[in-house]
Amino acid sequence: MKTFSLDENEQREHFAWFTTIPTRWNDNDQYGHVNNVVYYNFFELAIMKYLVEASGLDVVKGSSLAFTAENGCRYHRSVQFPQVVDCGLRVVKIGNSSVRYELGVFVQGDEKAAATGFVVDVFVDSKTELPISIPVDIKQALQRLIV
Amino acid sequence: MKTFSLDENEQREHFAWFTTIPTRWNDNDQYGHVNNVVYYNFFELAIMKYLVEASGLDVVKGSSLAFTAENGCRYHRSVQFPQVVDCGLRVVKIGNSSVRYELGVFVQGDEKAAATGFVVDVFVDSKTELPISIPVDIKQALQRLIV
Amino acid sequence: MKTFSLDENEQREHFAWFTTIPTRWNDNDQYGHVNNVVYYNFFELAIMKYLVEASGLDVVKGSSLAFTAENGCRYHRSVQFPQVVDCGLRVVKIGNSSVRYELGVFVQGDEKAAATGFVVDVFVDSKTELPISIPVDIKQALQRLIV
Amino acid sequence: MKTFSLDENEQREHFAWFTTIPTRWNDNDQYGHVNNVVYYNFFELAIMKYLVEASGLDVVKGSSLAFTAENGCRYHRSVQFPQVVDCGLRVVKIGNSSVRYELGVFVQGDEKAAATGFVVDVFVDSKTELPISIPVDIKQALQRLIV
Repeated sequence: MKTFSLDENEQREHFAWFTTIPTRWNDNDQYGHVNNVVYYNFFELAIMKYLVEASGLDVVKGSSLAFTAENGCRYHRSVQFPQVVDCGLRVVKIGNSSVRYELGVFVQGDEKAAATGFVVDVFVDSKTELPISIPVDIKQALQRLIV
Repeated sequence: MKTFSLDENEQREHFAWFTTIPTRWNDNDQYGHVNNVVYYNFFELAIMKYLVEASGLDVVKGSSLAFTAENGCRYHRSVQFPQVVDCGLRVVKIGNSSVRYELGVFVQGDEKAAATGFVVDVFVDSKTELPISIPVDIKQALQRLIV
Repeated sequence: MKTFSLDENEQREHFAWFTTIPTRWNDNDQYGHVNNVVYYNFFELAIMKYLVEASGLDVVKGSSLAFTAENGCRYHRSVQFPQVVDCGLRVVKIGNSSVRYELGVFVQGDEKAAATGFVVDVFVDSKTELPISIPVDIKQALQRLIV
Repeated sequence: MKTFSLDENEQREHFAWFTTIPTRWNDNDQYGHVNNVVYYNFFELAIMKYLVEASGLDVVKGSSLAFTAENGCRYHRSVQFPQVVDCGLRVVKIGNSSVRYELGVFVQGDEKAAATGFVVDVFVDSKTELPISIPVDIKQALQRLIV
């Protein structure tokens, strides 16, 4: 498994899967840029969309949920509505209950990452909210994101 | 100018311009549906995107801004991440300073409106924040939205 | 039951219950004011907080949910972070399954409403999502909001 | 200057300044907890509110802005509307243009942190958006947050 810098040198080819996200007017904050908080929305959207598509995860009524234990982001250059971004996703570590994703946000037409970050999610039982072993279908979907 | 019902009988052909909006994980509220508040984000996004594309409005540093004076929405059927919606836009009244937009949100593949609503915007000078006559470029762009 | 104007002449004494809401940095949009969409967050927060406090509604795991069927808002004067607002709530109509709330947002220290609006909610069964008669505890709580 | 763990052992007394934040209905995500993204809203709100109060920073029209270069958060226990949280703030490093804040979110009545995190902000000129030396008034306000 490769080690990545998670900084402004990250490139599109370092990520295994992408989703396209049009920015929204309300993503801009009063400085006229997409607010830093919004990138975490992009991260969560990318992860959940991948899981739904790749593993059939039922994000509303499924028996397992993914709770975020830790996340972080570095901001390299600003993004602005109405730009469209591609959010790239890869997996760098799969544990018994947890997974570490790394993500890169690229403005369409731009090879340099606008932001890079990571998310550590823990899978829990939807009733007890206690950690569980990652379900097989999801684990296989996660393994396909290792680059 | 036609009169519309602004209810669940609104159809795609009643709108003059559309923008496609993928829902985001965080659009869902704790009931597992896109929250009612989010539709107003869709409305604002559609209006601003149209103005940027059709009139070259500089939404960040332009000399005129659009302030919302009134808006409203009716919810006909629920939408859920990761569905994609088309937000339709038309103009039904253009005054000296103000414009009334009407909007319809349609899930892709669905002919029936999930929600219908309206927005009344007033154009103001970006420095004084006082109403101004709608700039000519914008007025022409708005007139093209009358159905 | 009185009839109200729901316009800028609404006063604090026209509302039956208030909750205090500090604005957040991210409530401001790129024009430097609390964005119009955010007022609907205030409305939903006020209604839900009242129901939790007055009727013991379990907003997460209760057997009945409140779905919004329609809402609307008029904006009279701008609000800006870090101002604190009081959101006033009253009930003007209680049906078998539905209720019509009216709300006013007042900046602290200001007698004039910054915004006024309404919300029509329908109570549904949390499993079937079909309309139900308003549960007795909730109905009694709603009746106390009639002014 | 002390070194902190930034984990679940952080206590209220490790922070220099607090602001009280009532959660909002829409802070809860579809798992019924305050969504991880919202904590970054709390962080930004706390930092901006402190700067406005302590240094007179004009967050809308001032000559200097604070751009976020990096942030991160660890989630220790869940929070749920309508709980009220206290967000604690301290400064651990002041550079020429940048500052590193650390934050802790505590549910009222709870001594254990629900979440802990950090934010690195860079001060920039509001016109050129290039880094500047931290203005004296702001620097003094930041120094008072060192614990």
